[in-house]
Amino acid sequence: MDYYKEALRLHEEKKGKIEVTSKVAVDNLNDLSVAYTPGVAQPCIEISKHPEDVYKYTAKGNMVAIITDGSAVLGLGNIGAVAAIPVMEGKAVLFKEFGNVDAFPICIETQDAEEIIRIAKNIAPVFGGINLEDIAAPHCFEIERRLQEALDIPVFHDDQHGTAVVASAALINALKLAKKTIGDMTIVLSGAGSAGTAIVKMLMALGADGGRILVCNSKGIIHKGMDGLKGANQTELAEMTNRGQKSGTIADALNGADVFIGVSVPNLVTADMVRTMNEGAIVLPMANPTPEIMPEDAKRGGAFIIGTGRSDFPNQINNVLAFPGIFRGALDARATRITQEMKVAAVHALASLITEEELHPDYIIPKPFDKRVADHVAKAVCAAWKNRKM
Amino acid sequence: MDYYKEALRLHEEKKGKIEVTSKVAVDNLNDLSVAYTPGVAQPCIEISKHPEDVYKYTAKGNMVAIITDGSAVLGLGNIGAVAAIPVMEGKAVLFKEFGNVDAFPICIETQDAEEIIRIAKNIAPVFGGINLEDIAAPHCFEIERRLQEALDIPVFHDDQHGTAVVASAALINALKLAKKTIGDMTIVLSGAGSAGTAIVKMLMALGADGGRILVCNSKGIIHKGMDGLKGANQTELAEMTNRGQKSGTIADALNGADVFIGVSVPNLVTADMVRTMNEGAIVLPMANPTPEIMPEDAKRGGAFIIGTGRSDFPNQINNVLAFPGIFRGALDARATRITQEMKVAAVHALASLITEEELHPDYIIPKPFDKRVADHVAKAVCAAWKNRKM
Repeated sequence: MDYYKEALRLHEEKKGKIEVTSKVAVDNLNDLSVAYTPGVAQPCIEISKHPEDVYKYTAKGNMVAIITDGSAVLGLGNIGAVAAIPVMEGKAVLFKEFGNVDAFPICIETQDAEEIIRIAKNIAPVFGGINLEDIAAPHCFEIERRLQEALDIPVFHDDQHGTAVVASAALINALKLAKKTIGDMTIVLSGAGSAGTAIVKMLMALGADGGRILVCNSKGIIHKGMDGLKGANQTELAEMTNRGQKSGTIADALNGADVFIGVSVPNLVTADMVRTMNEGAIVLPMANPTPEIMPEDAKRGGAFIIGTGRSDFPNQINNVLAFPGIFRGALDARATRITQEMKVAAVHALASLITEEELHPDYIIPKPFDKRVADHVAKAVCAAWKNRKM
Repeated sequence: MDYYKEALRLHEEKKGKIEVTSKVAVDNLNDLSVAYTPGVAQPCIEISKHPEDVYKYTAKGNMVAIITDGSAVLGLGNIGAVAAIPVMEGKAVLFKEFGNVDAFPICIETQDAEEIIRIAKNIAPVFGGINLEDIAAPHCFEIERRLQEALDIPVFHDDQHGTAVVASAALINALKLAKKTIGDMTIVLSGAGSAGTAIVKMLMALGADGGRILVCNSKGIIHKGMDGLKGANQTELAEMTNRGQKSGTIADALNGADVFIGVSVPNLVTADMVRTMNEGAIVLPMANPTPEIMPEDAKRGGAFIIGTGRSDFPNQINNVLAFPGIFRGALDARATRITQEMKVAAVHALASLITEEELHPDYIIPKPFDKRVADHVAKAVCAAWKNRKM
């Protein structure tokens, strides 16, 4: 199937992918008097007396804003708020279909971080959570942090944390198969933007040794004082990773490494580079739609386990495995934020859906349409919030 | 039925009244690849090349933002953005049920006009129209005007124009029954806020003589140089109306008047006051839920035709007769604004649904559940845009 042609046809036929529908019947004057005036005044009065009742009488508790400025959309780059709408509607569809979460796209014309923060804060009343989407680094970090500080609903940048959760779950299962321990691994990560930064932090939360992680940006291996570090996050990465202060290219980084994770650009890694990795190499090139190395080339280079973002190869590492369940769980718990513990719980929940017996180099991560996923992740995330240290 | 109790029960049971649902199936990897990545990139690319294609490939063309700051909610006053949510969800339900328009509540925390304008402009990309709701005078006027200047989608403050359209349609039919001509009428309007101001302008567009309109605010009949005129709109009303520069109370205004229209406060008008009106008096007290005068008292005072906002009396003058059809028509026409001609077309469309034979003092306006209304209004509004003078 030609996905691109079919996508144009479907989007045009349906005129977009979402609609706003009523949960109540309005068939007669009685219905009207209850759903609207005069009856509707009563929940308004209750909420004005007890603001927490907004969760009782409105859709807030199940409603997520998908907020973007269109500055980093898919692999398309900075195409702006209007052109980003199809992706945000698609995200809303996935929220509903996979997590039974209502989600609505808020596509913001400005790309000024202060303005985006101000807008998101001001329109927060109807939302029980905020999913930041396709906002470029480094301002995505500032926007997420400041919004979360200001609001008492979860704020979650999916490109960072959703990606980190799914990639980490895949890695954990791959390591089980390879009979390796995360703390002993030399891990090479290509891409030092939002996803790369979050993956490093997640791997360290899961026990990886930051000193043995090598992060590459487009200039090479990140190390302290390197020319052209972009944003506070890359400076932070230089501090957290690369104990040996190695410099060089991605090829240099991969030499003797155990794991490769890619959230960068197509066709960056060759079979020859994979050949220089350690025995039992785990290769997760997730650039989409064209990965850093095609699976057949990675295999030719001797990779033991390979996972990509694509549906036409085994081990599809897809965010849809994480965000619907994570928000479902956070909303169910009425969490005021999504903690690192909740994300870690999501990683383990996702990884644990595949039993030791089922684990196989071609099956390290649940499939996107595995019906158990969202509920299983949600329960773990919800429990992690409820059991948090206060 | 106790509407208030039942409203609480329903709102709690359903957890609000709206949900965001998918128009496309996502049952397998193929669906996912078309509705989301990689296929979704294609409509994004098309829109980034041809911004007008946003109407072709997204839900924008049928999506209206219901924007409020919660500063003038129903008769409850300034209860704020959070407590306003049930009303805005209710409005979204009516948009969908009556006009098949998708509408989503944007409840804004700030009540600063500049900030509201900036926010609305910035989140406009996903919306094909903006319905301003329950925003207090006078800043509602500034917000509507400035937003409409800035955006190429219709901006419509329903409390003003929706009310004006429905009240005017009722009056037109009442005048037919009373065999009177609008230009000869002395019209008393109680309430000089958003609705009152829009009604005056609409009546004049329909042929009323502004000089014979008397508008009362809480201090009495508005005239030039009057103490305590609030906002530019009341100064403007003082210029446009009351040729004789009459001053005094609502009782003074009604003495010798032909028409009373109320968009103000309960129990302001007495049977004795109605008795001083001219023969064949038309009395439309629309304060909600308790009108300026109860129908039985108006009748006792000799009123010929009476209409209120309530569903439990004849002639319910309800905005739901106007806004779904007006937006349906504006969206269908892809109008960039809603002109006075479009509103006038809506008035005549609404009034004309009742034939001369059907007209009766207890049937001057279609009933809210008359299935013909929205479509009939929409067609007239759409045609008025298409036939506009360029």
